[in-house]
Amino acid sequence: MEKYFDRLWPINRSLTGNGNRETLKILSEIADIKISEIPSGTECFDWTVPPEWNVKEAWIEDSKGRKIVDIRDNNLHLMSYSEKFSGKMKLDELKKHLYSLPEQPDVIPYLTTYYKKRWGFCISHNQLESLKEDDYSIFIDSEFNSAGSMTIGEALIKGNSDYEILLSTYICHPSMANNELSGPITASFIFNELKKNQQPRFTYRFLFLPETIGAIYYLSVNGNHLKEKIKAGYVITCIGDPGKFTYKRSRRGNTLADRAAEYVLTQTEKDYITEDFFPTGSDERQYCSPGFDLPVGSLMRTRYYNYKEYHTSADNKSFISFKAMEDSVKKYLKIISVMERNNYFINKNPYCEPQLGKRGLYPTVGSVKDTGMIVDAYMWILSYADGKNDLLSISEKSGIDFERLFEASNKLIENDLIEIVDKVNS
Amino acid sequence: MEKYFDRLWPINRSLTGNGNRETLKILSEIADIKISEIPSGTECFDWTVPPEWNVKEAWIEDSKGRKIVDIRDNNLHLMSYSEKFSGKMKLDELKKHLYSLPEQPDVIPYLTTYYKKRWGFCISHNQLESLKEDDYSIFIDSEFNSAGSMTIGEALIKGNSDYEILLSTYICHPSMANNELSGPITASFIFNELKKNQQPRFTYRFLFLPETIGAIYYLSVNGNHLKEKIKAGYVITCIGDPGKFTYKRSRRGNTLADRAAEYVLTQTEKDYITEDFFPTGSDERQYCSPGFDLPVGSLMRTRYYNYKEYHTSADNKSFISFKAMEDSVKKYLKIISVMERNNYFINKNPYCEPQLGKRGLYPTVGSVKDTGMIVDAYMWILSYADGKNDLLSISEKSGIDFERLFEASNKLIENDLIEIVDKVNS
Amino acid sequence: MEKYFDRLWPINRSLTGNGNRETLKILSEIADIKISEIPSGTECFDWTVPPEWNVKEAWIEDSKGRKIVDIRDNNLHLMSYSEKFSGKMKLDELKKHLYSLPEQPDVIPYLTTYYKKRWGFCISHNQLESLKEDDYSIFIDSEFNSAGSMTIGEALIKGNSDYEILLSTYICHPSMANNELSGPITASFIFNELKKNQQPRFTYRFLFLPETIGAIYYLSVNGNHLKEKIKAGYVITCIGDPGKFTYKRSRRGNTLADRAAEYVLTQTEKDYITEDFFPTGSDERQYCSPGFDLPVGSLMRTRYYNYKEYHTSADNKSFISFKAMEDSVKKYLKIISVMERNNYFINKNPYCEPQLGKRGLYPTVGSVKDTGMIVDAYMWILSYADGKNDLLSISEKSGIDFERLFEASNKLIENDLIEIVDKVNS
Repeated sequence: MEKYFDRLWPINRSLTGNGNRETLKILSEIADIKISEIPSGTECFDWTVPPEWNVKEAWIEDSKGRKIVDIRDNNLHLMSYSEKFSGKMKLDELKKHLYSLPEQPDVIPYLTTYYKKRWGFCISHNQLESLKEDDYSIFIDSEFNSAGSMTIGEALIKGNSDYEILLSTYICHPSMANNELSGPITASFIFNELKKNQQPRFTYRFLFLPETIGAIYYLSVNGNHLKEKIKAGYVITCIGDPGKFTYKRSRRGNTLADRAAEYVLTQTEKDYITEDFFPTGSDERQYCSPGFDLPVGSLMRTRYYNYKEYHTSADNKSFISFKAMEDSVKKYLKIISVMERNNYFINKNPYCEPQLGKRGLYPTVGSVKDTGMIVDAYMWILSYADGKNDLLSISEKSGIDFERLFEASNKLIENDLIEIVDKVNS
Repeated sequence: MEKYFDRLWPINRSLTGNGNRETLKILSEIADIKISEIPSGTECFDWTVPPEWNVKEAWIEDSKGRKIVDIRDNNLHLMSYSEKFSGKMKLDELKKHLYSLPEQPDVIPYLTTYYKKRWGFCISHNQLESLKEDDYSIFIDSEFNSAGSMTIGEALIKGNSDYEILLSTYICHPSMANNELSGPITASFIFNELKKNQQPRFTYRFLFLPETIGAIYYLSVNGNHLKEKIKAGYVITCIGDPGKFTYKRSRRGNTLADRAAEYVLTQTEKDYITEDFFPTGSDERQYCSPGFDLPVGSLMRTRYYNYKEYHTSADNKSFISFKAMEDSVKKYLKIISVMERNNYFINKNPYCEPQLGKRGLYPTVGSVKDTGMIVDAYMWILSYADGKNDLLSISEKSGIDFERLFEASNKLIENDLIEIVDKVNS
Repeated sequence: MEKYFDRLWPINRSLTGNGNRETLKILSEIADIKISEIPSGTECFDWTVPPEWNVKEAWIEDSKGRKIVDIRDNNLHLMSYSEKFSGKMKLDELKKHLYSLPEQPDVIPYLTTYYKKRWGFCISHNQLESLKEDDYSIFIDSEFNSAGSMTIGEALIKGNSDYEILLSTYICHPSMANNELSGPITASFIFNELKKNQQPRFTYRFLFLPETIGAIYYLSVNGNHLKEKIKAGYVITCIGDPGKFTYKRSRRGNTLADRAAEYVLTQTEKDYITEDFFPTGSDERQYCSPGFDLPVGSLMRTRYYNYKEYHTSADNKSFISFKAMEDSVKKYLKIISVMERNNYFINKNPYCEPQLGKRGLYPTVGSVKDTGMIVDAYMWILSYADGKNDLLSISEKSGIDFERLFEASNKLIENDLIEIVDKVNS
């Protein structure tokens, strides 16, 4: 992971541009990403894909020819989607184009001007304060190309069913670690792990999109398909720091996505946060917009807005932990594994309990004090094999571990005592 | 308020009689009250309007000609609806007609004998104990007039809609302050304030009725209309003391009346009481009887039964506070203002979020840490503009103030992004 | 009770056999039990009634001819359903047939081998440890009779309605006190008390069955009838110890059985336990199996599994209390009495309240501070006489005692103000 991180870190990503292309190409080494180009000017719902933006150079020089700010030092120095500019100005005039964070004077803030033409530089407040009266030269060699395109990535793992699990992440922030690279790297590694297994039950759809406009474009083309096919989904973001997990529920709040994620967190984490849906945040805003209302939540670690390094140069490699990120991959895989094996059943002998003993499923010496958990698991499944309770629900009711129940359900199927109600394909 | 209080205080009100007429005439100076006379003997459901009762004199004299009890000192001295009587008797015989409260020996209790012919005097227990053997003269010059009538008042403010908000109070207790005068005075001042504004959304129906029989008569004539038209209502009583607010829910418990009142209390009061409906109390008993089950609650301060001065001569001017009563008027107006502006919406762009930026509703510099509450308000409304959540519900979910959401909803309407679902007229 | 206990204690009960016959004969002295014999080999759902098992002698002798283990000392010494055996063996070989509880070295465990042919003795771990190398003689004179039968008992009290209350207990454990004899003795005494009264509303069905196979057989024949007719039911077990009450809910969790039992516990016990349904335990496993899902819970004292004496020789007379058992009988009778009198009503004057005063149901002196609880009871019933709330629900809402409400409801019926909605016969 660290190698990929180091290669992706210096690339200047934005809504569009060569940085995004390069990013997806590198991630393709891990996951089978199909890269598509969406022409600038494409209409999607209330939005339009913006012109492609690329930047070659961007700096400020003082009168002695010293580069005091240079995008080569940090991509965040240039406000994203800044227009071309070349000129000289006094400090007063320049300051109108300088952005800093007085309350965090050490860090460079991250700012964008996607839909309004202007230019600007982001610098630390300390540096801003230290600037002296002088004649400054400004040079921004950026370009907007209306004939360009927005680059998006998609990777698919076909399952037995055409019902889908959606995993969506974004590629549009330059050099930030938790609130950018943790997402696509984690998603790619999940893809890689899933691909190793035999064909899964569900089809898995991985999306690598510029935030907001990317998701809106994608939904404008595939929204109806997703509405029909998605059984659960997650937006993968802010997943690389070593903080505790945060699960943000889907708008409906009790979907399979929510139940599986919260179940796994309950079982495996001592301390975690769950939050009801709120309509700010990342692309769950689009997936859960009232017209779609998809079952999409978001499993994060420390959530956007909740850490002071967010959207600054301090959201960097030292803020995240590759060990935590590996753990995040495992957590997503665990949730997926629960969903893959979660079934509804019908008891084929619903009148009284079946005689487990004659099938070797019950101890032949009766009335030992503890019949052992496996018999309990049989009993719970048989009792709730009514087509209305899935294994997750039986696990919640009984307190018996999902794995144990899954094993027990297989034994009961083998013995023709229950059968699966196929709710996945319906 | 105090002036009106002082004029209304000495009047001897009861179910019927000249005192009630005089009371409504004085209140008409504040609110446009239409006064009606309902003939004694009128049948209404299981009840009959009683004969009109008036009293000129009522006193007890000792053998030395000293008036030891006189209605001129306090209206409560005569049990309401006492029959005419004139005669002499010994203390033993007299005591059968004297009522006191041993556990509160200083105060005169308030008693009635509406539906059984008898006579009686109410005196403090201390006075009762001090009475000596003597020959007492009793004189009660009261009259029952079967050709008389019961007097009721009604005031209407026409709104844009013929859906109504009901505000009901009672005028049947003689000289009591919290459990009588606070109600009609508060109601009249609410009317007066509402009348000053432009035409409201709802039609407001104010009722000034003798308790129980008045409400029953009114429902017998107007019950079907109210059942069809009332969106919310409140019984206004015990609203003048300086204690904390008490909200008693309607029988259904989650009506607009309940939601608006509880919302305003949550937002504005540190400490208040809410109670589920119970079928004793005031006229909500009739409005919420199972055949009508109207959305009528009651916002009070210290509730009837809960203060020891209740139904005694100690429920007087010194028990209440005009400042508290003004505050009560404001609280009702605030609740009304919430109901007037509470809407359900439909998002006209339900697929993904609309581009707020191009409409000037979103900061053009992206990714500042805090987009500010107004953008949050837009997002919450757009997300829940599904025809099922009103502004009250969005405020509860988001924690954003109702006023802020109302402003934001207007901006979104102006920008043709949402439209109101007219649940008021349906 | 104690006399019956002492007579029933020494009898060796099991799934089948003469001990069960004798047990039911003794209980017939208290309750009118109809005894039936179900032939071995009868098929019932997934099960088959086992051959009848009887045992005459069973012992182990050491080489000096001393009986070191003898069923005459304690029925638990022989594993239930042990096959015939006669022979000699060394200690090592013998030990394969000896069962003890190392964690409770003083007690004899209770074990069965119903569905697998083997033989075994149960002894205290202390005794096991003290056994020396020796030649032991073993003699078990037991017999399986495929032409035998399983004995079950049933007692019926006909009510006005053919809707039923089920009271089910089991007779299959040898010499155990709480987890056996407390059940059938309590059930018999409940029968006896109920029989003394006039004809009840409901029909009461008492079942005395060998656990599991007995209930399964009974349901195989009467399941459809029970499904149609049972309004509530309880499994009576572990009801004789002096511990606090435990109520285990039916699978549906909010049936009349649950509501009545929990109501009575709330009203009468300071401290008690309620548990959601779980599919292990006693015959509620069968009654609540998903095909039947009957409204059957279980009121116990200290529940099976929850006391260390369970299924050992320590679950004996000194573990239980006849005073507690008498109390248990009363608790069941109280629950029954609530169900017998629980009604749904319709208010015949649903528009406003009826004038209680003219019917003598309201004090004629109005506005005393406390109208007294009986008027409150009238008000609550009238307000919730909407066909949806029964007396239990009105008692929960109002906090007024069930008895008081029942009295008040009778007064209101007498006065033609409400009528019963017959939900018992529908």
